[in-house]
Amino acid sequence: MSKVRYGIIGIGNMGSGHARILTDGSIKGAVLTAVCDGFEKQRQWARENLKDVAVFEDSASMIDSGLVDAVIVATPHYDHPVEAIQAFDKGMHVLIEKPAGVYAKQVREMNEAAAASSKKFGIVYNQRMNPLYQKLRDLIVSGELGEIRRTNWIITNWYRSQAYYDSGSWRATWGGEGGGVLINQCPHNLDLWQWTIGMMPKRIRAFCQFGKHRDIEVENDVTAYVEYENGATGVFITATSEAPGTNRFEVSGDRGKIVIEEGRMTFWRLRESETAFNERNKELFGAPECWKIDIPSDGPSPEHAGILQNFTDSVRNNTPLVAPGEEGIKGLTISNAMHLSTWLDGWVDLPFDEALHEAELNKRIAKSAYQRQEASAGSKTV
Amino acid sequence: MSKVRYGIIGIGNMGSGHARILTDGSIKGAVLTAVCDGFEKQRQWARENLKDVAVFEDSASMIDSGLVDAVIVATPHYDHPVEAIQAFDKGMHVLIEKPAGVYAKQVREMNEAAAASSKKFGIVYNQRMNPLYQKLRDLIVSGELGEIRRTNWIITNWYRSQAYYDSGSWRATWGGEGGGVLINQCPHNLDLWQWTIGMMPKRIRAFCQFGKHRDIEVENDVTAYVEYENGATGVFITATSEAPGTNRFEVSGDRGKIVIEEGRMTFWRLRESETAFNERNKELFGAPECWKIDIPSDGPSPEHAGILQNFTDSVRNNTPLVAPGEEGIKGLTISNAMHLSTWLDGWVDLPFDEALHEAELNKRIAKSAYQRQEASAGSKTV
Repeated sequence: MSKVRYGIIGIGNMGSGHARILTDGSIKGAVLTAVCDGFEKQRQWARENLKDVAVFEDSASMIDSGLVDAVIVATPHYDHPVEAIQAFDKGMHVLIEKPAGVYAKQVREMNEAAAASSKKFGIVYNQRMNPLYQKLRDLIVSGELGEIRRTNWIITNWYRSQAYYDSGSWRATWGGEGGGVLINQCPHNLDLWQWTIGMMPKRIRAFCQFGKHRDIEVENDVTAYVEYENGATGVFITATSEAPGTNRFEVSGDRGKIVIEEGRMTFWRLRESETAFNERNKELFGAPECWKIDIPSDGPSPEHAGILQNFTDSVRNNTPLVAPGEEGIKGLTISNAMHLSTWLDGWVDLPFDEALHEAELNKRIAKSAYQRQEASAGSKTV
Repeated sequence: MSKVRYGIIGIGNMGSGHARILTDGSIKGAVLTAVCDGFEKQRQWARENLKDVAVFEDSASMIDSGLVDAVIVATPHYDHPVEAIQAFDKGMHVLIEKPAGVYAKQVREMNEAAAASSKKFGIVYNQRMNPLYQKLRDLIVSGELGEIRRTNWIITNWYRSQAYYDSGSWRATWGGEGGGVLINQCPHNLDLWQWTIGMMPKRIRAFCQFGKHRDIEVENDVTAYVEYENGATGVFITATSEAPGTNRFEVSGDRGKIVIEEGRMTFWRLRESETAFNERNKELFGAPECWKIDIPSDGPSPEHAGILQNFTDSVRNNTPLVAPGEEGIKGLTISNAMHLSTWLDGWVDLPFDEALHEAELNKRIAKSAYQRQEASAGSKTV
């Protein structure tokens, strides 16, 4: 394949961003040939701004036109799996926006469709391209940090005012988005939380607060405690109503601790492992020798362009994906489990009961101030 | 009273420390006249090192000698209330070491004895003398930070090796200490957590892990989530098996956030309150203007000497106590509730069922590898 011909489903905030990257020539081996959107206003924007790009009203027509090899799904969250499954059925490569979907059950069906196809499946986890998180993963995978003992991510700098929430009737509703900060703002963090350390929690106890300091239906303040198979524990805290908030990710291991905060990584590295020190130490208040190390920066993150280049390379040359679409279910599973733990006021073991989660979610959708239209092949803006 | 004549009950690690401060002349208006200890080795140390100080085998004899006006209780934790109640009954002023006791029920009885007496009652919460925490309390009480929204204390730098735990058969046992890191290492942090913000939690969900990476009976790894009456939430994390660990206390409020870490305080101050900004803001991604402020240090903490001077001044001149003994029950209540929440695997509302807690504790004491002797008036070293 000389160039991957892309079609974008949904030309809202995210879709138009992808369109700009694809049309500015920065992605080698990629060309934008078509877009589709259910809204005339968005199609009008496409006709005016995207040269030599066909514009369709719905994704089926766009795919059936034969103009595209791969689609980028940038619709509202609920429709990601719907569109992806349809695209796989029609032989497309598929790159979906985050989150993978709203509930694990629908995402599992999407993953099954991807597995049954021979096409590439990616997710726009652009923060996996950030050298800071890649370095953290490297230091953990390579054993520099030793076995993980604790994770702690305070990510409370997702500030959103009431004006933000009031800007769309679907925003922050069970019917429109299927969740709040966990579904809309935190998918990257929830993905990185498990991707960097290479472990999923085995059980979760979460405390979501709904409409905290904001007039909304869904959660915008979350504290979650998790336990991992190896005995490690973790905490994840997020909020949209705090200013300025904090973004501090700490991981402790047998060889010290790593903290990422304010765009910098610091590694407090033990000269020998805590386990080895503890076994040989005889001093009452002895502690292992520790070196504070400023880990050098590997430069800025290529972000969305990095994901698009990686996906394009994978389609053309079968190179490995940084963010395989099948992995979208991991962060979503954590997010779903946090909701379910709060709703049930108890522990949720992983893998959890996806049907129970869906039933509980549907109760809230039924009472939601926002009621979606029937699902259609047409896409909508995010 | 020209000088307060002190007697120390228990001349172990802490008691001998107080003796040194009282005999080096740094406390104005105080004199050490007597000490007592159940162990001959400790009495021998006192005879050799403390000039003009009477040495007794038990506290009753020391108090009955008429040589002292005030006692400092520095015995094992379980005996703090026992000794304090006896001393109040005999008309002493009483300064107790932390923790106030091991379970809230016995500490409540001590507080009642104190209330029934006309004497001063203090607790050695020396970290309340630290200008950093005094400043934090000041910034909160004065309204600079606005209404509290979140607290987060990661205090995982209480590193203790197995050699430490093996240094005494009573250490880290239910029978000997009645708990682990919450009872032995964290009383200061648990006190400061509520004292600086001026709020106790209304309910607690805690996750204690027992003997984490160490061969001990009690908890040495704790994550706790709390909710306050005003809707704020909080997290407290501690551990003894992590190196180098972290000591980072963050408090968020309507006017920004304050972080104390590595002995420094930073105040991210909003120019206007988040509430006021949110009400007037019309911009989709608007956020309040924030100033990062390095709060200047007010110098080193006078620590134990500060507490001794404050207590002495209070006895002589009726000046206010920085750490009234009655307040010892607050941190202990949080600690007890964390144990109880873990044991019951559920929420604990405050005030909690003290009899239930005592019964659960007694189950663990009954199975403990360390069985205490009958309580006696004689004191033991810590």
